[in-house]
Amino acid sequence: MVSIEDIRQAAKRISGRVHRTPVITCTAIDGLAGANLFFKCENFQKVGAFKMRGATNAVLSLNDDEAARGVATHSSGNHAQALALAAQLRGIPAYIVMPSNAPAVKRVAVEGYGAEIITCEPTLQAREETLKAVVERTGAVFVHPYDNETIIAGQGTVALELLEDVPDLDVVMAPVGGGGLLSGTALAVKAMAPEARIIAAEPVGADDAARSLAAGHIIPSVKPDTVADGLLTSLGERNFPIIKENVSAIWTVGDPEIIAAMKLIWERMKIVIEPSAAVCPAAVLARPAEVAGLRMGIILSGGNVDLDRLPWLDHLED
Amino acid sequence: MVSIEDIRQAAKRISGRVHRTPVITCTAIDGLAGANLFFKCENFQKVGAFKMRGATNAVLSLNDDEAARGVATHSSGNHAQALALAAQLRGIPAYIVMPSNAPAVKRVAVEGYGAEIITCEPTLQAREETLKAVVERTGAVFVHPYDNETIIAGQGTVALELLEDVPDLDVVMAPVGGGGLLSGTALAVKAMAPEARIIAAEPVGADDAARSLAAGHIIPSVKPDTVADGLLTSLGERNFPIIKENVSAIWTVGDPEIIAAMKLIWERMKIVIEPSAAVCPAAVLARPAEVAGLRMGIILSGGNVDLDRLPWLDHLED
Repeated sequence: MVSIEDIRQAAKRISGRVHRTPVITCTAIDGLAGANLFFKCENFQKVGAFKMRGATNAVLSLNDDEAARGVATHSSGNHAQALALAAQLRGIPAYIVMPSNAPAVKRVAVEGYGAEIITCEPTLQAREETLKAVVERTGAVFVHPYDNETIIAGQGTVALELLEDVPDLDVVMAPVGGGGLLSGTALAVKAMAPEARIIAAEPVGADDAARSLAAGHIIPSVKPDTVADGLLTSLGERNFPIIKENVSAIWTVGDPEIIAAMKLIWERMKIVIEPSAAVCPAAVLARPAEVAGLRMGIILSGGNVDLDRLPWLDHLED
Repeated sequence: MVSIEDIRQAAKRISGRVHRTPVITCTAIDGLAGANLFFKCENFQKVGAFKMRGATNAVLSLNDDEAARGVATHSSGNHAQALALAAQLRGIPAYIVMPSNAPAVKRVAVEGYGAEIITCEPTLQAREETLKAVVERTGAVFVHPYDNETIIAGQGTVALELLEDVPDLDVVMAPVGGGGLLSGTALAVKAMAPEARIIAAEPVGADDAARSLAAGHIIPSVKPDTVADGLLTSLGERNFPIIKENVSAIWTVGDPEIIAAMKLIWERMKIVIEPSAAVCPAAVLARPAEVAGLRMGIILSGGNVDLDRLPWLDHLED
């Protein structure tokens, strides 16, 4: 079970190896929301997402024998890049299982951090079998993207920093996919600001976490459909109990609102975020009555988008 | 003559009304540059540029009688938006003279801050005559975009904050157009870190400041041609003596390098800057021998670009 002490240890371990990201405010968006929003900008984190924190903590938590064998995961997203870079910085091997249909730009990024890519068929079964074979062959340590205690502790450092900078928050918000960021955030907030509420947000088209919280058990994500492609996965076994115990609400919001929030944050704050990071601000802007007058810390989780494929431009062309 | 005391007063005056912007670093770009670069992110300033500092200082420096009559300027760029917003925040009128060929989006932004736009023919003579008529009619105080002491003091607060956050810099860099930012930066650096060098950068296609510094007198900018459209103007009478006395060098760099630096900063830092803000990093990356091992503070001056008209995408289409 992850504790606040694990998160504090993680913060010490990764200090100087990841960025302490800025907290940025915007009067214009506060006016639209009717609330005071404090944006913790993990889009400026290394590899462009909070994932670098958990990956760095996981890699630095290995003993020398484990480290010598390296780390492995299956991912085509931000976790793959983060684990590759964290391994490179410790000088150990990283093995990344990626589906054959992963975009070339993602392969290039992971290879650029010195990782070895193992290609597999684009099915969950093929990913898991290929990963298992890689781990057997190399002895590498599997680092799950979110269902992993060192990952949860690492992601919890985002809220730790946010609350150090802005202690008197009424609410802290994080997006939820597998629940790595949300569970780490929940533990940090409960320990550091016990009176603050923890609220998550997710897309209507991938609302398995909201349904899981309502049901009291994990409901898998089946055929999710949303522009927020970082939030498609089901909740993890280690993440759900923490979320169930500590999270007050999970707010859902539609893709048009997500895209509008992404565009608004560019226009008013000059910050480019990925759709998965726009889910929290979109959910806030859709709930004027619930948020009126609150001081809210909002984690902007990442900024990895192609500027020539912005969804609000695609949207206009539809 | 502007002094460090004027800059400190400006910092107090505008505190809480403009953003204290973050300083962000990037290991990957440090590796490419062979230097340690500390980017002061004025692209996240209100209205997306450092201009908000000078405009706010100018508006708050007015006495009540002056303030009641309002402020006026001619500009179609960041200064127009900044002065309009600063005036709106004090609740006083702003009159902005804009040429008839100014982009609609810029007119809308200025009107959105409650300013009155007076349209004129797109010639310097028409701008100046129209402004004179506006000032005579309204009694408004003309706030020049850079050749103005309260503007210089306000822009100097960028370097003040940068040196508070990172005191031990070898070099502080700012781009130069009219010289408002550069002259304020020079005064702040000389007072706070006298051993640090002040270096400016400008586009090859608008190198009047470099030629002025070499000649020892102001050489006007004639038919400038560069993608960095914030740096087209000639140096101001109040700015040049400060620059001449304090600035060690003005480095020029070509448009292809400026566009490449803009793209690099997006790709590695997830920060979108306007071409005028990319001139300093471009000049640094072009001078590996001169910058090797230095700790350099670099002011990223603004971030106002259209994401659907990025110059590196235009460039690919050429």
